[in-house]
Amino acid sequence: MSRYHRRLLKHCRLSPGRPVHLDRLDPVGAHLERWVLPGEAPLKVRAEGLLEHSRMELAHQQERLYASASHAVLIILQGMDAAGKDGTIKHVMSGVSPQGCEVHSFAEPSREELAHSFLWRAWQRMPARGRIGIFNRSYYEEVLITRVHPELLAEEGIAPARRGAALWRERYEDINALERHLVRSGTLVLKFFLNVSKAEQRRRLLERLERRQKLWKFSLADVRERRYWDAYQTAYEAVLRATSTAWAPWYVIPADDKHLARACVAAMISGSIAGLPLQPPTGPFPSPAARARARRALLRS
Amino acid sequence: MSRYHRRLLKHCRLSPGRPVHLDRLDPVGAHLERWVLPGEAPLKVRAEGLLEHSRMELAHQQERLYASASHAVLIILQGMDAAGKDGTIKHVMSGVSPQGCEVHSFAEPSREELAHSFLWRAWQRMPARGRIGIFNRSYYEEVLITRVHPELLAEEGIAPARRGAALWRERYEDINALERHLVRSGTLVLKFFLNVSKAEQRRRLLERLERRQKLWKFSLADVRERRYWDAYQTAYEAVLRATSTAWAPWYVIPADDKHLARACVAAMISGSIAGLPLQPPTGPFPSPAARARARRALLRS
Repeated sequence: MSRYHRRLLKHCRLSPGRPVHLDRLDPVGAHLERWVLPGEAPLKVRAEGLLEHSRMELAHQQERLYASASHAVLIILQGMDAAGKDGTIKHVMSGVSPQGCEVHSFAEPSREELAHSFLWRAWQRMPARGRIGIFNRSYYEEVLITRVHPELLAEEGIAPARRGAALWRERYEDINALERHLVRSGTLVLKFFLNVSKAEQRRRLLERLERRQKLWKFSLADVRERRYWDAYQTAYEAVLRATSTAWAPWYVIPADDKHLARACVAAMISGSIAGLPLQPPTGPFPSPAARARARRALLRS
Repeated sequence: MSRYHRRLLKHCRLSPGRPVHLDRLDPVGAHLERWVLPGEAPLKVRAEGLLEHSRMELAHQQERLYASASHAVLIILQGMDAAGKDGTIKHVMSGVSPQGCEVHSFAEPSREELAHSFLWRAWQRMPARGRIGIFNRSYYEEVLITRVHPELLAEEGIAPARRGAALWRERYEDINALERHLVRSGTLVLKFFLNVSKAEQRRRLLERLERRQKLWKFSLADVRERRYWDAYQTAYEAVLRATSTAWAPWYVIPADDKHLARACVAAMISGSIAGLPLQPPTGPFPSPAARARARRALLRS
């Protein structure tokens, strides 16, 4: 991994156990921008340059990953509505072969999923070795939306008496143990929190409402959920603190500028895969004698 | 749960963290037999009585479990070849509706399964709330057969340098964390080790070879694996010690007499489900007025 990538990752990484105050983390990313994208051109132009570069690098790294089949990559994207999760997936992964990459969106759970423990449906979608799996939202919703709306826990069969602090502590512990297991088993776990401000969210929701081509993305539910903004911020702060671990830290991405956010995420993913100790393909390869015979046969044919 | 069931479970339970010496645990179960099945009749007759009683009780408990849908039951059966796993499943579960019960055998993993972490394929088969899942062998094979034959780890992509003590410690920890998560999520985890002696295994393998109706069960591989008997015993001792936890203890069942073993397992399962704090079905039920209307309509029709 390059020094540039290491520095970028470190800049956004949350130290394990350190209290998190989202209101002190800059959603604009002015400081990050200054050294990630130095230059005089408009931010969009500079960001597009880094994004394009990282995309090409990522396509190369994905091929290495696929050929070696020694590691998997799990990318978790979390963030408020309109934080830019879909756009990030689209723009960051567009250069990668869909054969080695899969995206899973975790919307409302099905009845079958609700009948299992809260980690079950994520396990159904874990990427195998050689592959990149992207979770658009994830099991983290089970300590976010359910914390803001604890009545949802009824569908999971959690009795009212159990909906207290101990439940969330247990879930954090189960999540950390799951991710520790994944990392031990050769999965690189990358968790990005797209940190958008409340003002920028309003601007984007209004844009969806007012621009014809964006109307399909508009949902009244998003407007309703905005009323719970503070409760979500508090839930996120607790989650980020409790689940940013040595083996799977959280990266907080300033998301008010989507070009900057996409460029940073792309660079961090490609840099992290480049840092994996990927083993070269092990074969079995044909022996030198067999290859010599094959060459002779080809030359004669 | 009755006092009888509590005592039976306690008799077979392995205390967490206590060293396990399989050669000191009686595979015949003479002591267990004396108080579980007091009487003068032949052991087989007494055992059949308890088995029949427990089967009926289990059918009743399974209906409660299914109706409440608040808990799941995961039964793990481990033991050497010919320890009686298949027979136990057949005889213990025969009274239970197959609608609420599923058996999964964990044989050689597929290529797809090998490409994931060692817990992945078990997750695909976890019982949902309201259901009983039986694992005939389980993820425990990943700390047993792979420990006796570490070359199998190559298929899982584990490099030779990692095949040491730390790998097994990590796997025990991951297994304990998985089971803790399941128990927290409302799954009763019952783990039975069918403890058969080496002499009784030989008798059963010979029987398979010599009796026409049993020949289909005979496998040359079982005879080959007998050479690794001591290595398996050592692996089992380490596993039982490291993974008998407060939330999911191991029960060691004397298995040289299959009638005694089946009767004990059946009693332990039905007693344990009886001890679950199953919630009554929550509805939504029709209101009294709606039921009155329905009754009137039925009477008129």
